[in-house]
Amino acid sequence: MKLNVVLAESALELVPHAMWKSPPVAKDGARRGLEPSQILLDRSLHHSAMLRLADSHKRGRPDLVHVTLLDITGTPLYLDGKVKVFVQTYAGKVVELEERTRIPKNYLRFRGLMEKALSGDGGELIRVYHSTVAGLLRAIRPDIVVGLSVQGAPTTLPELGKRLAAREFPCAVIGGFPHGHFEPETLKAVGELARIDDRPLEAHVVAARLLYEVEKSAAND
Amino acid sequence: MKLNVVLAESALELVPHAMWKSPPVAKDGARRGLEPSQILLDRSLHHSAMLRLADSHKRGRPDLVHVTLLDITGTPLYLDGKVKVFVQTYAGKVVELEERTRIPKNYLRFRGLMEKALSGDGGELIRVYHSTVAGLLRAIRPDIVVGLSVQGAPTTLPELGKRLAAREFPCAVIGGFPHGHFEPETLKAVGELARIDDRPLEAHVVAARLLYEVEKSAAND
Repeated sequence: MKLNVVLAESALELVPHAMWKSPPVAKDGARRGLEPSQILLDRSLHHSAMLRLADSHKRGRPDLVHVTLLDITGTPLYLDGKVKVFVQTYAGKVVELEERTRIPKNYLRFRGLMEKALSGDGGELIRVYHSTVAGLLRAIRPDIVVGLSVQGAPTTLPELGKRLAAREFPCAVIGGFPHGHFEPETLKAVGELARIDDRPLEAHVVAARLLYEVEKSAAND
Repeated sequence: MKLNVVLAESALELVPHAMWKSPPVAKDGARRGLEPSQILLDRSLHHSAMLRLADSHKRGRPDLVHVTLLDITGTPLYLDGKVKVFVQTYAGKVVELEERTRIPKNYLRFRGLMEKALSGDGGELIRVYHSTVAGLLRAIRPDIVVGLSVQGAPTTLPELGKRLAAREFPCAVIGGFPHGHFEPETLKAVGELARIDDRPLEAHVVAARLLYEVEKSAAND
């Protein structure tokens, strides 16, 4: 069994062109000695410039992606090479981590790493390319795909973990954004949606719990 | 049931006096407009100045404490007010979060919050005081205390979750440091140690899994 995890429509992107000249972005770039085009969009720094950005509630939260990746990459399942992670972003890119790749726990180092990767310099362990969720799933070719969403059919995490671990090459799709729902084209690509709690949970909590349940089920095989 | 979680000997502290004049600390302070005494010790910034610090392998990792707190405070159990968190630090302080208090997901904001709290300005939601783990446990007065450590007796997380959730006021003690083991005085105060995996797991992975299992057991009551 190898589990694919797709963080879909993730709030991780470089500052979009329309914001390059906005004062908070220019200031951030000057302070860090980087061009605006080389900086991660970050709501905590660029909030005022994001107000007129489309879907701004789903964007500019690299901190969420960071914590979610830490929760995934810290699990025994991942450390054993049984998880493959893809960060599909709002802007239509995919950041694919080589198996067992660890990411910096320090946020500033993570930010620097992602800025380099999204600028085309991800090194040997991080591959970046353009893809929608639909295209990514066609490339992965999993034998089951389940998206996690409060809009899905109620299930329990142990049940879902068991179903995924029973396959050879399952794929879980988790929203990598702070608020809102999957876009229609993502919903269409994913197909089945499962709801694992009464309330919306943060992506990192979902990821931590799901990997744990898959790991437990896989160990019992 | 209310679960107490103590992150013990956590790698969260202000820069100690002996390092105030070291170049990386002075530079960090100048850049941020803060006195060295007001800055969190951070290995990613102050590494070269930490080499001669006692127990330096256990110190200066606020990033680990941050991720662990996010994993705890993002759980339904915590959101329902059924978890109380105490960050007991290497330097012998306790950072106690008021129930249901959320912490910033952005690391730089978390850092600023902790710097203020440890400097005596935690606001109404964060209380800071001096205490060892032993003193803290005497103050909490839990009806069971279990420390998590690879040095402990092997158990499974579901078993441990069940045992804790069966009590009214249980307490789990998790090491809030990156490497090494609990100090002898902590071991003595904690008493029972449980080992939940073959390998050492990061504090945030342990916390996420333990809270999840306690939550499941509590829900089944």
